[in-house]
Amino acid sequence: MREVFQQELREVQDRLVEISTLVAGSIERATESFNESNVALAETVIEEDHKIDELAGALDELAIQILARQQPVARDLRIVVSALRISASLERMGDMAEHIAQLSRYRFPEKVVPKGLRGTFRDMGALDVEIAKKLTELLRTEDMSIAEDIRNEDDKVDALHLSVFDKVLGETWKGAAADTVDATLASRYHERFADHAVSIAKKVQYLATGDWVPQDA
Amino acid sequence: MREVFQQELREVQDRLVEISTLVAGSIERATESFNESNVALAETVIEEDHKIDELAGALDELAIQILARQQPVARDLRIVVSALRISASLERMGDMAEHIAQLSRYRFPEKVVPKGLRGTFRDMGALDVEIAKKLTELLRTEDMSIAEDIRNEDDKVDALHLSVFDKVLGETWKGAAADTVDATLASRYHERFADHAVSIAKKVQYLATGDWVPQDA
Repeated sequence: MREVFQQELREVQDRLVEISTLVAGSIERATESFNESNVALAETVIEEDHKIDELAGALDELAIQILARQQPVARDLRIVVSALRISASLERMGDMAEHIAQLSRYRFPEKVVPKGLRGTFRDMGALDVEIAKKLTELLRTEDMSIAEDIRNEDDKVDALHLSVFDKVLGETWKGAAADTVDATLASRYHERFADHAVSIAKKVQYLATGDWVPQDA
Repeated sequence: MREVFQQELREVQDRLVEISTLVAGSIERATESFNESNVALAETVIEEDHKIDELAGALDELAIQILARQQPVARDLRIVVSALRISASLERMGDMAEHIAQLSRYRFPEKVVPKGLRGTFRDMGALDVEIAKKLTELLRTEDMSIAEDIRNEDDKVDALHLSVFDKVLGETWKGAAADTVDATLASRYHERFADHAVSIAKKVQYLATGDWVPQDA
């Protein structure tokens, strides 16, 4: 029984890594489409988000079946519950990538990234991509030093997010209302993407160490 | 065993109703603080959000203990998993109310709601409050006609959300960048609040009917 359970947990972990890999590809294309106004690339992100949704749904089914079949208790039970929560957060990360891609599609053939913020969004996008790749690695290895890296990079995303508002609300801002809307939404989506990764990293910490992490901590 | 389980499920349901009641109070004060620039009211929302977080965390603990003690399978298992998901969504609804309150605090003593959008935000706010109250009633009664009402009101919130962008991106918009940022974020928070309620309503449908609803459907 215990061996079967361990095998099933490995299957759960493999699937989390698979979904996280898709999310990393999605944010990479989304931020490129956003920064380069590449509408074809944006459309691949939008069209393929359902794959992430389906895989997350299938993983939830597997987790529920494991609960039913193996009736885990104590730490094992919390591992399975954590997997359900991680899957929900990965699904939301995919949604954030999709929203970023949608912004570039809406404005096409206009450039979506307002002048004066291109460098900021390039940096935020690069950080989100880096965070997603590290998250995949963290889910694969449970090496908690990676969780620390993710938190540090999230701090940088938060600082850039605040700098977007400083810019937009500053006296030198000459953007039209459309630029202000785009900057506001894009910055929020980039920031939420990184937040979800931090939240997942905390849950992986539980998987690795047994320190239980409440929801949304 | 079965009877104890039913009793524990009732406890879960009572607690969901309790959290939903707090969320309804929170959005009511948040939207009033937003519409009336009432910073003292905004602060009560911000200060009290941790209560919602704590109750949601305690409910998660209870649900996990029920899984461990009762080892439910089949439909019973999915009911408990649904409760975990509903609790996470209620917690996010509380966050959205808090974000709306934060917007009014940031801009104080300036009015946060841009001219020309006050009616729109009053309507959106009133719909969110109505949705939260109906959600509480739905969780209490499992009367699925209420879920239908919530979906219809969410459609109205979505339409108002789009109308905010029409206004802000239209030629008659004279708002400053700060107004555009506020309108964009506030509209997004109002819309997400209602989305979470719809997502919860679908999960209650499962509790009531046994039709399983995948995550984030």
